[in-house]
Parts: sequence; C-alpha cells; structure tokens
Amino acid sequence: MDYRGRVARVQERMRAQGLDWLLVAPSADLTYLTGLEARHGDRLTALLVPATGEATALVPLLEAGTLDREALPGALLTWPDGADPIALIVDRLSNAHEVGVTESFWARDLLPLQERLPSARLTVATSALRPLRERKDEAELDLLRRAAHAADRVFERICAAGLEGHSEAEVANLLRAMIVEEGHDAVAFCIVAAGPHGTRPHHDPGERRIARGDLVVLDYGGSIDGYNSDITRTLAVGDPGPEARAVYEAVRAAQETGVRAVRPGVLTGAVDVATRTALESAGYGAYVVHRTGHGLGLELHEAPYLVAGDQTELQPGMVFSVEPGLYLQGRFGVRIEDIVAVTPDGVERLNQSDRALRIVE
Amino acid sequence: MDYRGRVARVQERMRAQGLDWLLVAPSADLTYLTGLEARHGDRLTALLVPATGEATALVPLLEAGTLDREALPGALLTWPDGADPIALIVDRLSNAHEVGVTESFWARDLLPLQERLPSARLTVATSALRPLRERKDEAELDLLRRAAHAADRVFERICAAGLEGHSEAEVANLLRAMIVEEGHDAVAFCIVAAGPHGTRPHHDPGERRIARGDLVVLDYGGSIDGYNSDITRTLAVGDPGPEARAVYEAVRAAQETGVRAVRPGVLTGAVDVATRTALESAGYGAYVVHRTGHGLGLELHEAPYLVAGDQTELQPGMVFSVEPGLYLQGRFGVRIEDIVAVTPDGVERLNQSDRALRIVE
Repeated sequence: MDYRGRVARVQERMRAQGLDWLLVAPSADLTYLTGLEARHGDRLTALLVPATGEATALVPLLEAGTLDREALPGALLTWPDGADPIALIVDRLSNAHEVGVTESFWARDLLPLQERLPSARLTVATSALRPLRERKDEAELDLLRRAAHAADRVFERICAAGLEGHSEAEVANLLRAMIVEEGHDAVAFCIVAAGPHGTRPHHDPGERRIARGDLVVLDYGGSIDGYNSDITRTLAVGDPGPEARAVYEAVRAAQETGVRAVRPGVLTGAVDVATRTALESAGYGAYVVHRTGHGLGLELHEAPYLVAGDQTELQPGMVFSVEPGLYLQGRFGVRIEDIVAVTPDGVERLNQSDRALRIVE
Repeated sequence: MDYRGRVARVQERMRAQGLDWLLVAPSADLTYLTGLEARHGDRLTALLVPATGEATALVPLLEAGTLDREALPGALLTWPDGADPIALIVDRLSNAHEVGVTESFWARDLLPLQERLPSARLTVATSALRPLRERKDEAELDLLRRAAHAADRVFERICAAGLEGHSEAEVANLLRAMIVEEGHDAVAFCIVAAGPHGTRPHHDPGERRIARGDLVVLDYGGSIDGYNSDITRTLAVGDPGPEARAVYEAVRAAQETGVRAVRPGVLTGAVDVATRTALESAGYGAYVVHRTGHGLGLELHEAPYLVAGDQTELQPGMVFSVEPGLYLQGRFGVRIEDIVAVTPDGVERLNQSDRALRIVE
C-alpha cells in the first residue's frame, strides 16, 4: 500500500481544514496510514502528522525491532520504559493551535495533552481521514472482492455440510475452519443463531442444537491483508412453515430494494429509508431493530453508515453492507446481508451467493 | 463475581475523591465492574456511575438481548441506531461538576461531552479504579493461580516435544493448542523467538527454522474466566555455548533477586531497580531494553508497573510479572518471567516451572 501517498492526502485535507497537527492513535486509521497494527495498551504508540513536512511514528523502544522501517511514511521516534511519551508530543506541538486527534484517541493521553498544550484546541479529526478511508482504491477493492468471494464459497460449503443436529458452536467451528481454508488470513467473527436465538443480531453461538424447522442466521467474516468480508444468510433446516417464508421473502425483497437504491449521488440515509420502508410496507415495521448497513474495509464497521438521517453522499469506491433484518421476539430472526461497492454508474455486489431461501438438511 | 460490591467500592472512592460521576468505556474496567465484554466500536457502550445511587449501563439496543441483565450492577438503558447516546449521558450529568472517565474513553465521545457539559470538569479517573483492580481478591487469585499452573504444564509439554527443525510459527501453533488443552478458555498471545529474533521482545513467530545451538524465547499466555497467564522461559536447543550460558545465568539470578525483593511495603520502582541492578552488576547493563514487570489480571498488562521511579507500594493481593531480559542485538535474547502475588508476609510464585537452563532437542 502507498502509505506515503495516503499521508500526503491527509496533509492536503489538514491544510484545507486549518489543522496544524493530526495525532493518530492505534486503530484502523493508524494501519491505513502506516501499515502498523499496534494496539492501544499501557505503552503509547501514535503517528504525529504535521500539516506540512514529515510525519513521525512514536513507538515504544521495545517494539522498534519488529517494525518495517522502510514502509513507515516518516521518521521513527522511540521512547524507552520510564520516559514520558506525552512530553515528546508536547515538545513537537508547542506552537500548534489546531490539533486533530483520531476518534479512538484515549482520554489517558488526550486530557494531559489539553493541559500541557494550553494554546492548542484539540478536536476529533474525523473529517480529515474519513473521506479517504471511505473511498476504496483499486487495490483495496480487489482485497474486499477476494474476501467477499471467499465468504461466498464458505456459504456453499456450509449449506452442503448440513446443520441439523449440530450445536450452534459446532457450526461456528466449522465455519471458522472454512473461512481460513477458503483464503482468508484470519477469522474476524462468526455468528450462528438458531430458532429464537436468531432474534439477537449479535448472538454468541452456544450449545443449542439445530432442529428441523429452525431458521438459522449465519453471519461471519474474515480478513485478507487486513480487509474484511461480512456476509449474512438465513437458512431453513427443513420446511420452516408459511409465516417464516413470508418474513424471509419480505427481508429478501427489502434487501433487493436497498441494493437497487445504491448509486453515486444518493444519500446513505435514503438507502436506509428505502430498505426500511420496504419492510414496513410489508407490515413488519414492528420487528425492525437496527439500521440497514455499515461501511466495511480495515474495520468490520466503519463509515459510511446506512442509518436514517445520515447525509453522506454515495461516491464511487464506497463499500458497505445492505442488511435488513426482522426479529420476531421469542420465535425467529431473518437477516440477509451483502457487501456492495458503489461504481461510477451504479452498484457492484461483492457477494454473489444466492439470496433465495435455502432449505438444507 | 460480585459486581454490585465492586461498584459500591468504586462509589466509596469517588465520594472520597469528590467525583460526581464516573463514565466507564469498554475496557477491562467495564468488565471488572459489570462482566460486560463490550468492545469499543461505532456504537457507544458505557457504564455511568453516580457517586451515590444506582449505576446505569448504556448499551446499543441490538445488544440488549445478549446481556445477562441479572448480573448487571444497575439499570439498563438501551439506545437505538440513529439516536444520540451522548445526549443520554448529557441528560443525566447536567448537574455534574467533577466527572471522571476511564483511561480508554475515546476522544470521539470525550470531546463532545466537554462541549456539552460546560460546567463539568472531565478528568481521568485512574485513581478511583486502579487500587481496586490492583488488589486481587481470593476468587481472582484462584483464577490467576489456575491459569499460571496451566501455563506451567504447557511449558513441560513443549520441552518434551522438542523444537529442533520446527519453524517458530509451527512451535507457536503447538503452544496455542496446548494452552487450550491445559485448561485455558482462550489463547491470549504467543511469542516464539529463535536465535537473533530473541532480541525482539514482542517478536511475531515466523518461518525461521530452529537450529541446534539456538536460544529460543517462549512467552505465552491464555485466560480462564478472563484472567490471564503470562510466562516466559528461554530454552537452549543443544549446547548454546559459554557466553549464552553466562547471559542466561545473569538473567536467572536477576529474576531471583527481583522476586526476593517482593513483599508488602516495598515500592514497585525498588523491585525494578533491584532486578536491573543485578543485570548491571553482572556487566550487562547495555543489553537492557525494557522495565522488569507489569501487573496481570483481566489485562495482560495492567497496574502496577515495575519501572524505575514508580512509587506504588506493594500490598497483599497485587499480582505482577518479574521478567528481566537481556538482548544482544543480532545474536540472541534471554528473558525469564514468572507471575508472582504479594502475600501478607512476602511473595507467592504463581508459576512453578523450573528456571535453570533447559537444554532440549
């Protein structure tokens, strides 16, 4: 990835927005700009980006040996245990007035910086980074496409394997193995929710045995070079009965409506409303409990968000889920999710798996 | 775990410190107080603790079904997608003057709260929580002991398995399987660093094949009910030669010195200095690159920290690592780490594995 180019584009935006410095905490923002996969922890790591000139990666001394220094888009500044890394930031920013921090910057570091940089105003610099991360370039799209296709292959394999008699946890273990076997570097997450558990969108797979007549929500993903897949399908184990079929069909139609609404210039909120209205018109408005989509990339959930009222204008290169769901408390849930990319003249579905109701063993 | 009791003890400390509210972000602090294992993400989760009265868990609506409401030490307040969770906090805190936030509170949430609560002063509330989390109770000590003993058993098994000819990554896979087989719920981390890779304290196991004469640093851990193990041993694959033996012996002696320095009333910084001085007196001061210990519990690294100058007074129930290391750049590294607990009259080693140099196949 072209980390120097990314930093240069952030700096361009910083200058346009009047930011003197940007402080990037461990997060997908840091990975996006540097390739570093540092985590928040007791030892501070941050990228310090001036509006003009070279960025500096501030890194604990004991991590220095594991860094790919060639890839770093700037200088390296290490600090040993016992030193005060905040002092190193204060030192560099002593003349700054407008300082942006990334969303995940910790209070532990932010509040002392406010105190020790009294002439600086610290703000959340979402607008400096978000538009860059939202629009994926060709290399990013390629990884997201590969991940989505790998997730599609996992879906075909789990359908063929059959679910009846297995526990949710067993199916989740199968899925995890398949996620890696089909080409992901790692498993990102895995939800298997059978029968009434399907009403919990983020259910943790447990010991419930899957029985004939169950609807089963499968929602899983993995990453390739850090870029994620995320797909949901709801399967029927044997005939689920007429009501479940009707609910399924409403979700399928709403998902289709949502995907068809996607093209450059449309607002994210409008896609959410189109999808949600389709569910409501079918008479199921009472069973909606979440927004209908979220961006995907280095994070499983990132901007843009498809939520009523959100004013983000869709642009080519944006990648997000369209995933309406209906949840009938105590009974069953249905969700269908594909990842889509905005193209210059419409939409590309990255997931290609069939969305008609699958009846499996 | 007695979450209500923990919240009550935090409130007692808040009143003593003059805090009106404490806002707890997703973190080990949140898990400690509620059992919740929420992660930071696009949807805000927080525990709102008043100095007096009932705490409130602010949780995204779609997570509500997966919560154990009985275990929650307070009320539940859910917020749906599209709502403004910050407004819910502002609403409750409108009369607050002194508001503490946990270290990992995000800038995304903190800076808007500062703006929307102009009469409140927001500070990092480390001192409200840290002393409680630092002193483990009997139930916590029991979990940490069980995890440490499981890590000890893994060590015996990996010694017996032999390392020669395997890649670091292969040994790491073996260790990960053994960590779970020996009774951990999950793997926390796994470092296998052979030969010159041993000079990187946080080396990511790779394709390097382990050869006769290599020193190999093994540093790994897992968790039981959220509480971690963390052990380091340095093995020799065949005879490593006289210099490596001398360096090993210096680290072993320093680790012994450090553990013997542990007892109630001693300062953490003094334990670090004792350990470090032992390395320096042996003539190896130039090869020290990190502090000699860190607390362990729900987090792999937590307070107290054993770093020169740290003034934390050791108290019964504190649990931390004693882990001196020496790193001869381009050649090899040696580190020996045990987890110890402060007892009323001294110290208990939670790890029991032998620390004499092991020569393995």
